[in-house]
Formats: sequence, C-alpha cells, structure tokens
Amino acid sequence: MQNFDNAAVSTQLAHVRIVMVNTTLPANIGSALRAMKTMGLSKLVLVAPKTYPHPDIDALAAGATDLIEQIEIVSSLEEAIADCHLVFGTSARSRTIPWPLLDVRPAANLAMQAISEKNQEVAIVFGREDRGLTNEELALANYHLTIPVNTDYGVLNVAQAIQIVCYEMRMAILEHSTTASAQQEQAMPVTAEEQMQWDEPLVTQQQMQQFYPHMQQMLADIEFFDPENPRLLPLRLRRLFGRIQLDRMEYHLLRGVFTRVQALSNGTWKKSTHREDQN
Amino acid sequence: MQNFDNAAVSTQLAHVRIVMVNTTLPANIGSALRAMKTMGLSKLVLVAPKTYPHPDIDALAAGATDLIEQIEIVSSLEEAIADCHLVFGTSARSRTIPWPLLDVRPAANLAMQAISEKNQEVAIVFGREDRGLTNEELALANYHLTIPVNTDYGVLNVAQAIQIVCYEMRMAILEHSTTASAQQEQAMPVTAEEQMQWDEPLVTQQQMQQFYPHMQQMLADIEFFDPENPRLLPLRLRRLFGRIQLDRMEYHLLRGVFTRVQALSNGTWKKSTHREDQN
Repeated sequence: MQNFDNAAVSTQLAHVRIVMVNTTLPANIGSALRAMKTMGLSKLVLVAPKTYPHPDIDALAAGATDLIEQIEIVSSLEEAIADCHLVFGTSARSRTIPWPLLDVRPAANLAMQAISEKNQEVAIVFGREDRGLTNEELALANYHLTIPVNTDYGVLNVAQAIQIVCYEMRMAILEHSTTASAQQEQAMPVTAEEQMQWDEPLVTQQQMQQFYPHMQQMLADIEFFDPENPRLLPLRLRRLFGRIQLDRMEYHLLRGVFTRVQALSNGTWKKSTHREDQN
Repeated sequence: MQNFDNAAVSTQLAHVRIVMVNTTLPANIGSALRAMKTMGLSKLVLVAPKTYPHPDIDALAAGATDLIEQIEIVSSLEEAIADCHLVFGTSARSRTIPWPLLDVRPAANLAMQAISEKNQEVAIVFGREDRGLTNEELALANYHLTIPVNTDYGVLNVAQAIQIVCYEMRMAILEHSTTASAQQEQAMPVTAEEQMQWDEPLVTQQQMQQFYPHMQQMLADIEFFDPENPRLLPLRLRRLFGRIQLDRMEYHLLRGVFTRVQALSNGTWKKSTHREDQN
C-alpha cells in the first residue's frame, strides 16, 4: 500500500474533466458524481442532458453535493472541451471510424503525463446510454479509449465505465508519485510483498541466522530430528520461513515457544499443574 | 490495445470466486453478477444472504442469467473458502486488526500468479453493506485487500468495489498473457518465486482450520497462552501462517511437532535420555 498526499492527488485530478453527452437517466449522473468523488475527481460537464436537475442525481451522489454545485452545463461537445489539450472519446470495441485507440490504463498514463509534465487539461467523454458517441463526436477526440471487457458480454453501463476510468486516472497519478519518489532512490521493480504495509519492523536475514539453529536445536531436543543425520529438515525449515519475512513480534513469539519447549524437554520448566502435584 | 484469447482469460478467471457475506440488498447481488460477467468472472458464493432469491437480482444481472444459475449459497464463510488456497478479505483503510494489506492491483497480480503458476483457487471476500467483515472473518484471509480511494470521501459501495476488483483481476490476467508472450521473445528478469516449481501441493484453507486450533492447543499445553484470555495470539498465528501458505509436507511436519510437544507436556512421551535415566 502506498502512502500518498491525498490533497496533492486531488489537485492533479482537478485537471481531468468527465464529460457526459445527452445523458438520459439522472441516476447515471448521480452515480458518475459518486464514482468521481470516490477517486478524487471533481469536474463534471454535462452536454445537453435530457433531464436536469433531478432528485435522483442528488440521491445517488450522496455526499458529493460539492461536485453537484460545480457541474457545468453546456449545449455542445465542442464547448465542453474548448479549453482542453487532450481529449479521449470512449467507445466500445466495435467502432465505425478508425482512430488511435488506447485501453483505459495506457490512456490514464498518457493523461497523467499531460497533466504532470505539461500542465494540460484533459477531458474524457462518455456518450449516450443507448448508442454512445456519434462519429462526429468521436472525431473531436485525440484518442479513443476502451475498457478491455469480456468480449462475449461487455455491457458496462456508463456509470460503471466512468467508475473504472476514474479509478485508472487515480491509479496513474498514485503510481506516478510512487515511481517518481522510488526512482530517486533506485530503479527497482516493486513486488507485492514490498508494497505491503506492515505495523512491525521485519527482521533481518542476520537475525534469521539465529532463528534456524534455535529451531533445529529445539527439534533435536524433542528428538524430532537427528543432528547427526539431518537429511532435508534444515532446508525445509529455511524454505518454509524464508518464504515470508517474519516481523519482530513473530520472531520473538516463535523463539519464546522454542525456549519453552526446550525447558520442558530438559526439565527446567514444568507445567503449573505438575508443580501443584508435587506439593 | 491487446489482442487476447477471451475464452482463455475466462478459463483462468474461473479460479477466482467472489464471496459476499450477509448481503442485505438483492440489487447489490445483481450488480455484482453483472460486474463479474463484464470482466469474465463466473463464480459467486453467497454466505447467508438476507434475501434470496429476489427479482432485483435478475433485473440488475441482465444478461448474466448463466451466472445466477451457478450461484452457490452456503451458511458460513469457512464453507465458502474451504477449498481455496489464497483468500483476500476486503477492508476499508481504517481497519482494527493489523494484517498483511495489499492494494487491489498488487493483490490481483498475486492472485494471477497463484492461478497461472500454481493452479490455485482464489477467493475475494466482501462484507456487509453497512459494516463490512468482522474481525473474525478478516482473520480467515491470507491478505487484506483495499482500494486506494480518495481518503476524504471514500464510500465505494460493495457493487462498485466488486466492479474494480473484477476489473483488476481481468487486467492482471491480460497483462500477464502479454508479458508471457513478450518473455518468449526476450529474456525478462524472473523472480525466484516465479521460477520456483513447487514439489508439494499447498494445503487448503480447510486444512488450515485444523492447523490453527492444534497449534493453539499445543501453546496452551505448554502454558504459552491462556485460552481464557487469548489476546492477540490466535490472530498473530493466522497472520503469520496465512502469509506462508504451507505445503503438505510442511503442514504435516509442523503438526507432528505440535503432537510431540503435547505428548512431552502431558508425560505420554519422554526423551530417550530420560528413559535411560529411569533404567
């Protein structure tokens, strides 16, 4: 998980506007606002919406009323994107005009670069619920954008499509921030394990070099393995605990257990019930 | 845009099940099915849904009736994930128990590796609309999964969260296919984990549900923890061994150790040196 400056991310995402053309259902506008706010986007432009305003918008945009107040209503797509540098028109895979086409993830990366490196304004344009954008509208875009859905089904509605586009925009900004700060240290691929947030410091390999002999000695003490003939056991233990990095708490917990078992085994510790028996 | 074999992607995604716990609104189940089908997932397991069946499910899952027919209803989360190897519990950022936590993107990559390289079954578990998963349910997961939303707002509903998780699962498979074919052309760096051919099958969640009580009983026997006042210990054990994913050999090795320690503790087994002393 990444630590990031939420406000800085929202500032960058303020340069991305979502444009909805001729939307019929107010619920879709409300859902779009909610999807946008969840991901930190704030600017929605409606091109000639069929019904506006409408209580469904407010109902579905619960908690995103600040975004409702910022909605801009215009009468044409040209107007909506007039001051934009980079415009993406969303389209289903089967399109009628040939055009540079990007999946949403590379499209989001391109948008992020345009914003962070060139200070540009970006628009992502969504069409009508029933028939999307016209060829004339699609021709106003620099790129077409598609979401690589299951081609046997593939019926994302406009609110779901906006949800995924907004999510990818946020991720592009987050990953760019992370990459930029990581590159200052060293250029390395980051594994899932490394991205994980942990509440306890992880132990070093050096500490683990005391862990394995301790565990093996404990196992020898309870005659679970023969140090004269160790076979594969030491390897198996390293393979087992080497797969994860123990944190400090886990390390001390396990070493404490080993010590207790050893004390039980050599008679220096007895169960309290046994001690009572002896009284 | 990637060219890909849609059917092959769906075959891999068949190893990912979405689990919804105690869902109240049938509409959320319908939306989940639609989100799943759009991305090529097919298996939904409902743990004790409040209302089922219900016409809203069919209405919102328009065109995904084949998935409705495949829904599995169970009464407990344990049952839902019994045959899974890798379980993700979804949680909001402010969580109450510390656990390995991954953003949805690296989590999807981990799941994809588990499926394509180890042929594992993966579950992603979503909680109740109002209060998510309980701590007990979260402790059944190997990892917690979070979606890095706008921290000033961040109210994804369960259907939206499922939408994004399914999208990232699909993208992980698609990107892996692309990477895999790229690797045939040029040698890419491969991590140790990826190169490793595991020689033993990994144990399922069901088997692990016998492991944890056994380990706890052993620890209680040596008075390392008080079952009347367990504190965080059971959670720490699940967090530790949930991260490792034991293979069958390791599982039996550790359970053998627990049994030996218990026998030592209750006096049914003695060290051979002690036995000699007694002679």
